[in-house]
Amino acid sequence: MRGRGAYPVWREIATRWADNDAYGHVNNVVHYSWFDTAVNAWLIENGLLDVTHGDPIGLVVETGCLYAGSLAYPEPVEIGLGVERLGGSSVTYRLGVFARGAAEAAAEGLFTHVYVGRESRRPVPLPEAWRAKLETIKLGGRDG
Amino acid sequence: MRGRGAYPVWREIATRWADNDAYGHVNNVVHYSWFDTAVNAWLIENGLLDVTHGDPIGLVVETGCLYAGSLAYPEPVEIGLGVERLGGSSVTYRLGVFARGAAEAAAEGLFTHVYVGRESRRPVPLPEAWRAKLETIKLGGRDG
Amino acid sequence: MRGRGAYPVWREIATRWADNDAYGHVNNVVHYSWFDTAVNAWLIENGLLDVTHGDPIGLVVETGCLYAGSLAYPEPVEIGLGVERLGGSSVTYRLGVFARGAAEAAAEGLFTHVYVGRESRRPVPLPEAWRAKLETIKLGGRDG
Amino acid sequence: MRGRGAYPVWREIATRWADNDAYGHVNNVVHYSWFDTAVNAWLIENGLLDVTHGDPIGLVVETGCLYAGSLAYPEPVEIGLGVERLGGSSVTYRLGVFARGAAEAAAEGLFTHVYVGRESRRPVPLPEAWRAKLETIKLGGRDG
Repeated sequence: MRGRGAYPVWREIATRWADNDAYGHVNNVVHYSWFDTAVNAWLIENGLLDVTHGDPIGLVVETGCLYAGSLAYPEPVEIGLGVERLGGSSVTYRLGVFARGAAEAAAEGLFTHVYVGRESRRPVPLPEAWRAKLETIKLGGRDG
Repeated sequence: MRGRGAYPVWREIATRWADNDAYGHVNNVVHYSWFDTAVNAWLIENGLLDVTHGDPIGLVVETGCLYAGSLAYPEPVEIGLGVERLGGSSVTYRLGVFARGAAEAAAEGLFTHVYVGRESRRPVPLPEAWRAKLETIKLGGRDG
Repeated sequence: MRGRGAYPVWREIATRWADNDAYGHVNNVVHYSWFDTAVNAWLIENGLLDVTHGDPIGLVVETGCLYAGSLAYPEPVEIGLGVERLGGSSVTYRLGVFARGAAEAAAEGLFTHVYVGRESRRPVPLPEAWRAKLETIKLGGRDG
Repeated sequence: MRGRGAYPVWREIATRWADNDAYGHVNNVVHYSWFDTAVNAWLIENGLLDVTHGDPIGLVVETGCLYAGSLAYPEPVEIGLGVERLGGSSVTYRLGVFARGAAEAAAEGLFTHVYVGRESRRPVPLPEAWRAKLETIKLGGRDG
């Protein structure tokens, strides 16, 4: 799995009591809620995503995650984020999940949006302003 | 706590693996997701609630729950629902949570909506069509 | 609702994309996941709660929340926490939910644990070490 | 994506209000909570999984999902489940997510458990009783 150096964008997220499952560790589902959270927060904070009125909108078409280590509430996690691939209408992000301060990733995920017209729900080209911003967070080389 | 006889409306909901917390029982938070689910489903299925375009809309102003017994995935739960109080702009529901087939409630909750204009966000009188339907699911006498 | 001055303990929690519901605001259920998170984190970080081996264990017997304003991802929330009442076997916490930097609470909750033996599941007196620590975070006077 | 005929095991799961996100459709994260729910319920109901005492235990090492259509509360979903691959210590399940009564899958996922000793947390051979049961739900040929 990629190390911390691969990721240009970072976000710390508090774990929650309910994130731990019956085995006392963060449930595998929760990682995906962090992916959603990290990707959309970056898009909103960079002025790209407007949930209520934006057009086009991103539909999630594929997600995946590899799990290498366990995490547990109440420790926060640090999510590294970068763009893996920019397609004509799509963006694939790679995300690394790290315990706070840990060198090794506890999990690594992929997350792909396809952009569609708000009304048509048909794929549209990624707007240039998006493409330019997304280029700035392309993943570095594999370092892990 | 009220018994089954108190509730005019019923809904079965599957529990999920993630509902169980580190103690191996359904976490206290999950009950509220069932309350939301039971109330809104009844409103939608009776033609009252239109999430996208409806006006007025219900804002949740108060919720509460008493817990008497534990529940655990994979057992489904049965949610009993009835109207406790119809105010000028508000509706308070009472909800009973029962393990499938159990006579005694495992939990009992209250859930209050205030109706406001979609734009104004100010309280408005409950529409007559709503009031008429909601009257039909008034709670029976206390039987438990 | 109580203002910030009432609460002796604070915890910031990141909101998540999935916290927002179909109306674009944090769903009423999510507040309870923050209550759980704030209470148990304080207990763990103060050396009182050991989820795996601890005895006695706290069962949640009552929760409730009043909602005064809306919150939305991606803004973080700040949770104020204090002890409202210390009983023989029980602890009731009061929690205030604030948008980051906001003077007024967006919601206020109550959360009651009863302590029971891990095996017996019968109420037991709150251990003295717990009582002493919990006394230190008693709620201040009502200031809001 | 595979059609209904591919899946030997089925489970209906109620959607919940909180499953819908700010776009009014079930959030991509929720599908994974259904996968967990369907896999573990089958294991428990077939006498294989004992969450509290069982040894070995299954660790989730990889999950993934392709999304083809949207789903929305309050409609229930039907989850098809089958074993895609039985390894020495691992089991990979394939899952299909269908709106109630729909012929076409709205999503399709993969979910891999590796079995480890409860104490050692090292991979162990899948017990014969498990292997025999899991063979009975091998996926049929691709039909979709």
